[in-house]
Amino acid sequence: MSRVRVHAFTVSLDGYGAGPGQTLETPLGRGGESLHGWFIPTRTFQRMQDRPGTTGPDDDLAAEGFENLGAWIMGRNMFGPVRGPWPDDLWRGWWGENPPYHVPVFVLTHHAREPIEMEGGTVFHFVTDGIEAALARAREAAGPRDIRIGGGVSTIRQYLEARRIDEMHLAFSPILLGGGESLFAGLDLLALGYRVEKHVATGSAMHAVISKNPEKPE
Amino acid sequence: MSRVRVHAFTVSLDGYGAGPGQTLETPLGRGGESLHGWFIPTRTFQRMQDRPGTTGPDDDLAAEGFENLGAWIMGRNMFGPVRGPWPDDLWRGWWGENPPYHVPVFVLTHHAREPIEMEGGTVFHFVTDGIEAALARAREAAGPRDIRIGGGVSTIRQYLEARRIDEMHLAFSPILLGGGESLFAGLDLLALGYRVEKHVATGSAMHAVISKNPEKPE
Repeated sequence: MSRVRVHAFTVSLDGYGAGPGQTLETPLGRGGESLHGWFIPTRTFQRMQDRPGTTGPDDDLAAEGFENLGAWIMGRNMFGPVRGPWPDDLWRGWWGENPPYHVPVFVLTHHAREPIEMEGGTVFHFVTDGIEAALARAREAAGPRDIRIGGGVSTIRQYLEARRIDEMHLAFSPILLGGGESLFAGLDLLALGYRVEKHVATGSAMHAVISKNPEKPE
Repeated sequence: MSRVRVHAFTVSLDGYGAGPGQTLETPLGRGGESLHGWFIPTRTFQRMQDRPGTTGPDDDLAAEGFENLGAWIMGRNMFGPVRGPWPDDLWRGWWGENPPYHVPVFVLTHHAREPIEMEGGTVFHFVTDGIEAALARAREAAGPRDIRIGGGVSTIRQYLEARRIDEMHLAFSPILLGGGESLFAGLDLLALGYRVEKHVATGSAMHAVISKNPEKPE
């Protein structure tokens, strides 16, 4: 069966996946853009802009996140800064006309909207009936391939609480954010059956791959 | 002036300095003993038992924590498992007759007790009038040398909130604890003027040295 995966999700040392005060100009909140210091230089990211990038463990982990994917799921705030009902159809994501997904992307929202077909195979679908419905649609779209949960914090926390995530690669960046969206607060990952499967430290981040304990009954 | 320092304070990836369910047998709570996987093999720790140990960045950071110290401060739970009024004078710390401090150690407690003079220069003093009184006594004892705050989480959080800590070395161990004592919950280290000064990743931990921004007015 296809697996549900999180990759390259980056948190500060104090556990925040986004800083306080998110706006259109600072979608990751105050200080949040510093989270991705490990990811930006990698070949995986840079080649999206046709530029050369670094190789090594940071890039290896970034690249793994794009292997064998058949669908993505993301929260609405990862899709864009618009809140409340969609005022029009102008917002088409942060990524331009050819987004780096190339598969169906299911966006969790409370506000219905027609699908958007982009260049390169990405189609944004808007799901208004919750995380399980989104996962069911993603499974259908992905077939034997895997499903990646993009973010943000709230989306990942909901799928963790439901024990739907099979594997989660977290990157800890050596910064403090002081506040914002905490990935861990009140979430007992051990009790949910998660454990650290492997870890890799680089000069830019500590990476941990967390997986669901198969011994724990569903 | 002498500085107030924290060293080798270890937290899990989910930010806990001790796991849930602390007892006499598991003073760091469930799973908490795994926190110190990076520290136990080091020469700095092993030579306390006259054994050889590893050198390298983990040991360098462990060793720095013992340089130029004139006093220690610790919470009562770091001193021992006894809670409430002292039933007798039998408990003399976890460390045997010659503890690894060799300077005055000020133990925060609500329950008065006579000082205990140990071998090797360690004297345990019990301070019942709060963190500022303990710090004043430690400063007097330390003279030009520095003061190390040992732990646990509650003690460190109180001194951070009071902006009394000048430098703090944290080690992030690649484990999950799921619950217990959170170092970060509700504590805005950025607003308190702290920032990550340097970081070193090893195969066993990600180390971060956090310091108080001197530009922020007291």
